Amino acid sequence: MDHGKFFESVDKLQARFIDRLRDAIKIPSVSSEAGRRADTIKMAHWVMAQMKELGVEVRLKSLGKEPGTDLDLPPLILGRYGNDLDKPTIMVYSHYDVQPASLQDGWDHDPWSLTEGNGLLHGRGTSDDKGPLVNWLNMLEAFQDADQEVPVNLAFFLEGMEENGSVGFRAALEDEASHFLSDVDAVCLTDVAWASNTQPTIPRGLRGVLFYRITIRGALEDAHSGLFGGAFSEPMTDMVNVMSSLVDSQGKLLIPGVYDDVLEVSDEEREAYEKLPLTPEALDGGIGGRLIHATKAETIISKWRQPSLSLHRIENLKPGPGATTSIPAALVGKFSIRTVPNMGASEVDALVRQHIESRFKQLQSKNDLDIDCVHQSDWFYEDVDHWNYQAGIKAIERTWGVTPQVTCEGGSIPIALDLKKVLKKNVLLLPVGRPTDGIHSVNEKLDKVNYFNAIKVYGSYLGEIAARWQGK
Amino acid sequence: MDHGKFFESVDKLQARFIDRLRDAIKIPSVSSEAGRRADTIKMAHWVMAQMKELGVEVRLKSLGKEPGTDLDLPPLILGRYGNDLDKPTIMVYSHYDVQPASLQDGWDHDPWSLTEGNGLLHGRGTSDDKGPLVNWLNMLEAFQDADQEVPVNLAFFLEGMEENGSVGFRAALEDEASHFLSDVDAVCLTDVAWASNTQPTIPRGLRGVLFYRITIRGALEDAHSGLFGGAFSEPMTDMVNVMSSLVDSQGKLLIPGVYDDVLEVSDEEREAYEKLPLTPEALDGGIGGRLIHATKAETIISKWRQPSLSLHRIENLKPGPGATTSIPAALVGKFSIRTVPNMGASEVDALVRQHIESRFKQLQSKNDLDIDCVHQSDWFYEDVDHWNYQAGIKAIERTWGVTPQVTCEGGSIPIALDLKKVLKKNVLLLPVGRPTDGIHSVNEKLDKVNYFNAIKVYGSYLGEIAARWQGK
Repeated sequence: MDHGKFFESVDKLQARFIDRLRDAIKIPSVSSEAGRRADTIKMAHWVMAQMKELGVEVRLKSLGKEPGTDLDLPPLILGRYGNDLDKPTIMVYSHYDVQPASLQDGWDHDPWSLTEGNGLLHGRGTSDDKGPLVNWLNMLEAFQDADQEVPVNLAFFLEGMEENGSVGFRAALEDEASHFLSDVDAVCLTDVAWASNTQPTIPRGLRGVLFYRITIRGALEDAHSGLFGGAFSEPMTDMVNVMSSLVDSQGKLLIPGVYDDVLEVSDEEREAYEKLPLTPEALDGGIGGRLIHATKAETIISKWRQPSLSLHRIENLKPGPGATTSIPAALVGKFSIRTVPNMGASEVDALVRQHIESRFKQLQSKNDLDIDCVHQSDWFYEDVDHWNYQAGIKAIERTWGVTPQVTCEGGSIPIALDLKKVLKKNVLLLPVGRPTDGIHSVNEKLDKVNYFNAIKVYGSYLGEIAARWQGK
Repeated sequence: MDHGKFFESVDKLQARFIDRLRDAIKIPSVSSEAGRRADTIKMAHWVMAQMKELGVEVRLKSLGKEPGTDLDLPPLILGRYGNDLDKPTIMVYSHYDVQPASLQDGWDHDPWSLTEGNGLLHGRGTSDDKGPLVNWLNMLEAFQDADQEVPVNLAFFLEGMEENGSVGFRAALEDEASHFLSDVDAVCLTDVAWASNTQPTIPRGLRGVLFYRITIRGALEDAHSGLFGGAFSEPMTDMVNVMSSLVDSQGKLLIPGVYDDVLEVSDEEREAYEKLPLTPEALDGGIGGRLIHATKAETIISKWRQPSLSLHRIENLKPGPGATTSIPAALVGKFSIRTVPNMGASEVDALVRQHIESRFKQLQSKNDLDIDCVHQSDWFYEDVDHWNYQAGIKAIERTWGVTPQVTCEGGSIPIALDLKKVLKKNVLLLPVGRPTDGIHSVNEKLDKVNYFNAIKVYGSYLGEIAARWQGK
């Protein structure tokens, strides 16, 4: 492909691309509000119509009713562009639904009307994820305007329930894996942002999570601590003891063996993290978080490349407020472990249970203990040497003139993991916006330069793939 | 005094005594319900009228309005019977207000109507504390019927707000200490019950309490444990560590020096506790409490004669429910220590603070710690060799034919401590009912034998005092 010509067309069509985003923002496709479910489905039809205009073969895949309601689930949008057996096929994932928003929440302007100013595009969905979604359409238009062939086959797989639990997505994905998606060679997901506010980055890793409930039961009812304190075996005493044995105040997990399979951080990686330009907010969350570690690199490593264990709460299991001087009869303690490569979830689970049971035994308590792992999802760590990632990195370099820093994230993106697990292909996380875009908050924005540059990144990415593609 | 004649009169007047209790139970003097405040005050007038009929010089002492309301506080009843300078003066404390009650709570019969059956007297206040209160009037009537002089001067000091925080009582007590109560030689409080269900007991000790709030603050807001877990210094980690350092699962306090001043339990006391006939409910609370200690004596000692430390709860200080996977920004941990003779409250407080501060320092946490002792009341431990206690013990022996076991209680009775601190006289806790009377619960009852025998105990107690009295 001729990158120069493509880039020129992107620059030329800016007004059209703004119009397209403006139309997209107008439709309040809030998937989590029953009253806006019709708008969410309307949004699917708008996207489908746009795709059709650009020559995409497109259909909606119904996901049926939302369980426990009379509401239709927003459909999946399945689109095909290109059918050349000599080209690779790239699956594009994005979502057309958005978070709730209203002026009453404190927006400076109507969230459902695109507002420009100071190089920013304001409105609900500009960054998450309507901007990144319509950019694929903008890209097709720019290719057509530049009279350039799109370098790969595209398989669009767009959902409308991402902000409301992605209900029905995983099953549909499994269903289509051997049909609509059977020829996919790699995946591109744009529902992410840079880690830095001032430098393009590209994430390769996400932490996994194991969420636990420990239940400790003693008497049948709460007891008066004056009348029975000293005589009863108190669940709260056992609970704080068990919980305090899991992690120390420096954030170090105390479960024997839990670090055994943690992937080491190389010196190069550590140096790169130290140099990464991050705002103070990226480190302390903008909420005055007290940082354990003295250096930026160690702080980043503790969030991206090391496991962590957070104790969330201890709740009285008996209903009612209870007297503040009571001995609680039964308690549930909640904590979660964030996992990183190459920790095995079942191995970690076994270590956790073994440790807690052994600690509890040492207490010689008369109470009963139960351990439940109520939620589990794996970490994600992609091969960045793969042609898919290398194409993404090169595209960013070509567009921004900067080599993106390869990063990780502390949280999870369940969809990324689903795509990886079901399709078993390389999944590129390709950021469009910045960490300060205010997604899920008021005054969501996308920098104009990010919006337009992303179109170039997309096109360039596909070109770089074609250049690297060796055939199946 | 002639005990035989007095006892005969008590037996003879049983029907009248039942009638008096019936009239008392009829008035729903629930001090904690605004709608029944008028009834509570009506109850004061009923008691005053009864006392006048029996020749008591009596007046009501107004306590003004209940703070923050337009409600009159129930008045104190101040009564004098006898004015012989050669006799000792005994202050009688009781209360004429009761706990709420209604058929809807599950009573088998109208709580405001005395119901007899199976040797029991059912109704709200029969045991707590109308039965014990009217028994003083019954006693006067029996003395008069037997044509016997009452052996001591009596100073009645009766309140109507005991079930609602004894508002105004302490100030009035201090006020009258040098006036109405200036000549008091000893105090008798009947607002207690046996420790055993089958054997008369007499309590000499109550535990004190120090109630603490530990506050640990980190970030300004709760944080996402995926994004920031490992990087932030987490208050919950510090909190469970500090709390787990206070007490172990065998109920042993881990604060250095806290046991130094605890009064030793003698071998005789231990043997007596082992022999004390207690129901299983008295030990496990009837709620399946898991007992730490293997023997009855050790269980009793742990509640009555040893300090205990109960961890009550850990609460998120930030408003709102918060996500269950969040890192709480600020927490408050609540615990209390029950103290026993001869622990000094200020010494214990100093040890607690020193221990927590030192433990927290060891954690090298970035978070902030605050320690508040929000409530404190001392233990109570009376001299049982005093003539006042010895008279009570002898009176029970004479009436029941059994030597009462001297016991303690795990909880506190703030009034007992107030009386002791303000008047600086021996305070006898003279039980009337049994632990299974259901005070503060449904179907409150008093055994008929306890009701009638208490009248004999009261009279006999006064006679025994006179026999021991050596003058001022």
